[in-house]
Amino acid sequence: MKKIKVAIAGATGFTGLELVKILAKHPGVQITHLFAQSNLGKSISFFDNKIKNTKKLPKVSLLLNSDLDNIDTIFTALPHGEAHSIAKKLNKNSVLIDLSADFRISNKTTYEEWYKVPHLATNLQKKAVYGLSEINRALIKNTNIISCPGCYPTSILLPLIPLIKKKLINTNLIIADSKSGYSGAGKKIEDKKLYPNINQNLAIYGVGKHRHMPEIEQELSIYNSKKIQITFTPHLIPTFRGILSTIYLDLSKDVTSNDVYKCLKDFYNKEKFIEIVTSNNMINTNKVLNTNMCNIAVYKNKFKNKIIIASVIDNLVKGAAGQAVQNFNIRHGFSETLSLI
Amino acid sequence: MKKIKVAIAGATGFTGLELVKILAKHPGVQITHLFAQSNLGKSISFFDNKIKNTKKLPKVSLLLNSDLDNIDTIFTALPHGEAHSIAKKLNKNSVLIDLSADFRISNKTTYEEWYKVPHLATNLQKKAVYGLSEINRALIKNTNIISCPGCYPTSILLPLIPLIKKKLINTNLIIADSKSGYSGAGKKIEDKKLYPNINQNLAIYGVGKHRHMPEIEQELSIYNSKKIQITFTPHLIPTFRGILSTIYLDLSKDVTSNDVYKCLKDFYNKEKFIEIVTSNNMINTNKVLNTNMCNIAVYKNKFKNKIIIASVIDNLVKGAAGQAVQNFNIRHGFSETLSLI
Amino acid sequence: MKKIKVAIAGATGFTGLELVKILAKHPGVQITHLFAQSNLGKSISFFDNKIKNTKKLPKVSLLLNSDLDNIDTIFTALPHGEAHSIAKKLNKNSVLIDLSADFRISNKTTYEEWYKVPHLATNLQKKAVYGLSEINRALIKNTNIISCPGCYPTSILLPLIPLIKKKLINTNLIIADSKSGYSGAGKKIEDKKLYPNINQNLAIYGVGKHRHMPEIEQELSIYNSKKIQITFTPHLIPTFRGILSTIYLDLSKDVTSNDVYKCLKDFYNKEKFIEIVTSNNMINTNKVLNTNMCNIAVYKNKFKNKIIIASVIDNLVKGAAGQAVQNFNIRHGFSETLSLI
Amino acid sequence: MKKIKVAIAGATGFTGLELVKILAKHPGVQITHLFAQSNLGKSISFFDNKIKNTKKLPKVSLLLNSDLDNIDTIFTALPHGEAHSIAKKLNKNSVLIDLSADFRISNKTTYEEWYKVPHLATNLQKKAVYGLSEINRALIKNTNIISCPGCYPTSILLPLIPLIKKKLINTNLIIADSKSGYSGAGKKIEDKKLYPNINQNLAIYGVGKHRHMPEIEQELSIYNSKKIQITFTPHLIPTFRGILSTIYLDLSKDVTSNDVYKCLKDFYNKEKFIEIVTSNNMINTNKVLNTNMCNIAVYKNKFKNKIIIASVIDNLVKGAAGQAVQNFNIRHGFSETLSLI
Repeated sequence: MKKIKVAIAGATGFTGLELVKILAKHPGVQITHLFAQSNLGKSISFFDNKIKNTKKLPKVSLLLNSDLDNIDTIFTALPHGEAHSIAKKLNKNSVLIDLSADFRISNKTTYEEWYKVPHLATNLQKKAVYGLSEINRALIKNTNIISCPGCYPTSILLPLIPLIKKKLINTNLIIADSKSGYSGAGKKIEDKKLYPNINQNLAIYGVGKHRHMPEIEQELSIYNSKKIQITFTPHLIPTFRGILSTIYLDLSKDVTSNDVYKCLKDFYNKEKFIEIVTSNNMINTNKVLNTNMCNIAVYKNKFKNKIIIASVIDNLVKGAAGQAVQNFNIRHGFSETLSLI
Repeated sequence: MKKIKVAIAGATGFTGLELVKILAKHPGVQITHLFAQSNLGKSISFFDNKIKNTKKLPKVSLLLNSDLDNIDTIFTALPHGEAHSIAKKLNKNSVLIDLSADFRISNKTTYEEWYKVPHLATNLQKKAVYGLSEINRALIKNTNIISCPGCYPTSILLPLIPLIKKKLINTNLIIADSKSGYSGAGKKIEDKKLYPNINQNLAIYGVGKHRHMPEIEQELSIYNSKKIQITFTPHLIPTFRGILSTIYLDLSKDVTSNDVYKCLKDFYNKEKFIEIVTSNNMINTNKVLNTNMCNIAVYKNKFKNKIIIASVIDNLVKGAAGQAVQNFNIRHGFSETLSLI
Repeated sequence: MKKIKVAIAGATGFTGLELVKILAKHPGVQITHLFAQSNLGKSISFFDNKIKNTKKLPKVSLLLNSDLDNIDTIFTALPHGEAHSIAKKLNKNSVLIDLSADFRISNKTTYEEWYKVPHLATNLQKKAVYGLSEINRALIKNTNIISCPGCYPTSILLPLIPLIKKKLINTNLIIADSKSGYSGAGKKIEDKKLYPNINQNLAIYGVGKHRHMPEIEQELSIYNSKKIQITFTPHLIPTFRGILSTIYLDLSKDVTSNDVYKCLKDFYNKEKFIEIVTSNNMINTNKVLNTNMCNIAVYKNKFKNKIIIASVIDNLVKGAAGQAVQNFNIRHGFSETLSLI
Repeated sequence: MKKIKVAIAGATGFTGLELVKILAKHPGVQITHLFAQSNLGKSISFFDNKIKNTKKLPKVSLLLNSDLDNIDTIFTALPHGEAHSIAKKLNKNSVLIDLSADFRISNKTTYEEWYKVPHLATNLQKKAVYGLSEINRALIKNTNIISCPGCYPTSILLPLIPLIKKKLINTNLIIADSKSGYSGAGKKIEDKKLYPNINQNLAIYGVGKHRHMPEIEQELSIYNSKKIQITFTPHLIPTFRGILSTIYLDLSKDVTSNDVYKCLKDFYNKEKFIEIVTSNNMINTNKVLNTNMCNIAVYKNKFKNKIIIASVIDNLVKGAAGQAVQNFNIRHGFSETLSLI
């Protein structure tokens, strides 16, 4: 099998470590660089003692001034604002798979308003494809900048896009109540000193202000005649990983919950990483942890014109590293499930 | 101080142990019986090694055939269906403070439909007062059967009742998305063998079928011209205790989020166990764990006719044992906060 | 591949569920019965929502009065005292792989003294082989009663037996300080009501009285000229699974820590499930959770005639279900690692 | 009551936050400064949402160049190497209560060898008193530099010192196997990126190399005719707080376990923060979490000349902030339990 030369920037963060775990066993990958800001020269096993066969992997090194010319694909799992300049440095045949928000928002003003930094690569923005694998597969195959979705958006967009395409729901009344383990909200926990605040705590945060909001609304609006606005409320749960989104919807006239179930079932019929279940099934993160799956349940409401949808993903896999590798497989012509099941 | 002779039935369950903890340090209480079904003769310290001074407490004994004549107040923290017969056995001066659902539902048919057991004390049902302390204080003072609210209902009714009374919200569009630690959903985890299902798991359950639903709708409807129906979705969170309810509301015409905040602030102005906070505050269970507090936050929504309310309680305290003792204090003329702060 | 017909008794306990998980994907196994005492007729997925493809598995049924004639191998993961009668009912070609203590103790009096029940199958006791896979492989291959070691003993015997065989340590001065997640001490937590006692708690228990003691001493003494007695102290750790045993040893004259390391390295040279590491390695349960591995580290002590050994296993895998399947593979001529890596 | 003006340096670390919690409710304390390196100007409630009435507390500020002249007592909860220079800056009437190792080791060479930094205040070292409250009470009362013991040493020294004083044990054969929640080993977890390594993990670490070793040996040796060396092995447990030390001892000739129990019972007879329990009691951290207690159990061993002692503390309270405040109370003539029970 051909070997793609791969670098991972931000290799020692939660998402970066997941990328290393998945890519280290990928038969079509040769990991050539593991970039981080500190702990240079250390083995990646220092950061996660569950990673195996780390002897074959390169030591942690600094991205700055590194020669990126021989890299075929670079995964960037960095704070927002850092992938712009990396994108500009890459030669034109290299592929960037960015896991930050840097290329997610197509509108420069919206990006700068929500992320409080200038967009430094607006010309490249046009080339970027929003890497929601099951939805944008054809585009992903033909771009060199793949911008992977946020974890919350992945859990919300996958169930909603087919329903909006088919006009089954009232797009004025969408409420998404999301619950996430703290690895997902990691960027908010800026400092380990905040640990007392997450130990055995359930918290609501960022009401109406979470940065995943514009991204969700942008992607939903693509499939609608007018801009969609939603109510989105994230919550922090005292466990390391997993997202459960509970979505409250009003149905279009004469649409039933069964129509919704069938629509999703048909739409994702051939997908390996999406499972649609019926009303009688309990849905939970346990079933998807450490997998690239998104499980979606459609529940009836006693109000016949309403339904409840629940979706679960592992925020570090389908919500980050797993979907990134799925996109990598799509882009490079590998089997889409390679190294992911 | 006068000493009330108190028995606790179901003393070894999660809620029962909380009752023991609180009542053991109550200066107006003499605990005379700790009833359970098994482990008879054991010290209560066997069941929770954090309870102090257990030497002064009676050993665990069997309720069946016990003489209840000398008991002034009995707390019953038992599975539903068991408090009916106890209520009938009590002499007329004794007070029953029931923490199960047995006297919560005023309609016999509704009770039997949701709880799948016959109601065996329908004549006593009329005497029972729904023990939501801050709302029904005057009634609690004058009854011998106090039926304590469920944990989810406490977290939902306290913020909603004042708003419905003042007609600030659209009562047709209430969505309550509740998250609970597993001690609260304990009855669902019938068997410790299910532990693998709660370890590090986020789950949605009982959509549209949870037994706390009829109780919530019954109590909300009291303050409305017609019956209120709500969408209520419980979730199981991988931590022992704490409930956070996120409530999505539509405002009545011309009502603002500030009106809602002021309404709640005024209504609970003098309450020691309720705190109303503004939009800028993160709200979380950490602040209320092991206390009898209910904290409520009012959040603006970008849709001006909508708001989001979050409320947090400790399900075993304000949602169970704490509110029960608060009711005990009200009924017996003690300071309402005695042994609770 | 030939298919062995397998029954699992106690299928809904922690260990039973692990057996189901491993055996359900074993290409040489057809699971014909899943026995439990209650919840009859339920799917095994009810007990653990992470088990996959449960549709092909039989529903939970009652062992009592079941016809066991067509079963090739029965795994018994039951409380002690129950495997004796099952063993007597089996036809002579069937294999019993018992995960309880019922056939571990070769001396009837010792068994009855520690387990407080009569030994009802003393004639079969002689046929039973102590299923410490790496040590007793040849015997396991040729018996129809395999008695799998306890979880603590597995973690203690594997590092000690080679050292005693080679006379490298003073057998009068062995101290094993073991730490276990609560799934391993499950039998001690007789009742879910005790949960408050394990939530975020570190505890020492059963000092000098733990039932795994006689089993450890019996197996160590086999390799010594006189009976070995040890100091063994178990501790309960607030996590679900994993055992770490820290073993304090005095060396025989002129023996160095390097000799100990080499002895273990040589002894387990070809073993797939045992890894010996040097002093510089941190050792921890993370590396072995959900695997059948036992990792062993040899640490120098500043007292030159002493060393410290640490060993880690997953108590539900190498300490229970995994080793049981390893023994099954040995007994039936499958590759020893089948379905285990 | 007189008010002592108090500053806390390192106020936003785990130990610092505990100090704030305790001192904020101390009737004899006015907190004038909360020093940290970053997040200047923030309210302390940002770091721990469970701290109450934080409005009265000063905002976080920078120690560097602050005027310390008006401070009566400064608590320093900083990495080692930083308290030396603070000590030198204080005016001669001010009291330093240091929670780092900077003044624990009386020998300059030993300090520098283990802590890899120069000792910058060797002249002040002589004035420093080792703040093990129950043992050095008289000295603490009369010094202006109180060096609080490490968490592990507190759990080990309290049970051992009385036994060594009375010559009840063989001081050549002391083994201490300690288990700690990760807040105690916090300094080892240098970076939140290491979180994957502590999530649900039991680990042994620092065998023979832990920096608390020289401090334990120094303090034990004071009561012995010759230098004592011990075997000390720390372990990391997947819970936030709590230490359990299991200590394996050989008795002096003709000494019984009962003699040991009596010795400890007598020695700590009047102490409010130490409880000695007998062999039949399970001992665990649950009983001491969030308290300043040290509970000690004496267990018989089947070898009559040996015993096992277990001790438990909350590493952040008796092992750090609580003992520091106890020392503060002793030094300033307050009741020793003030703000601690």
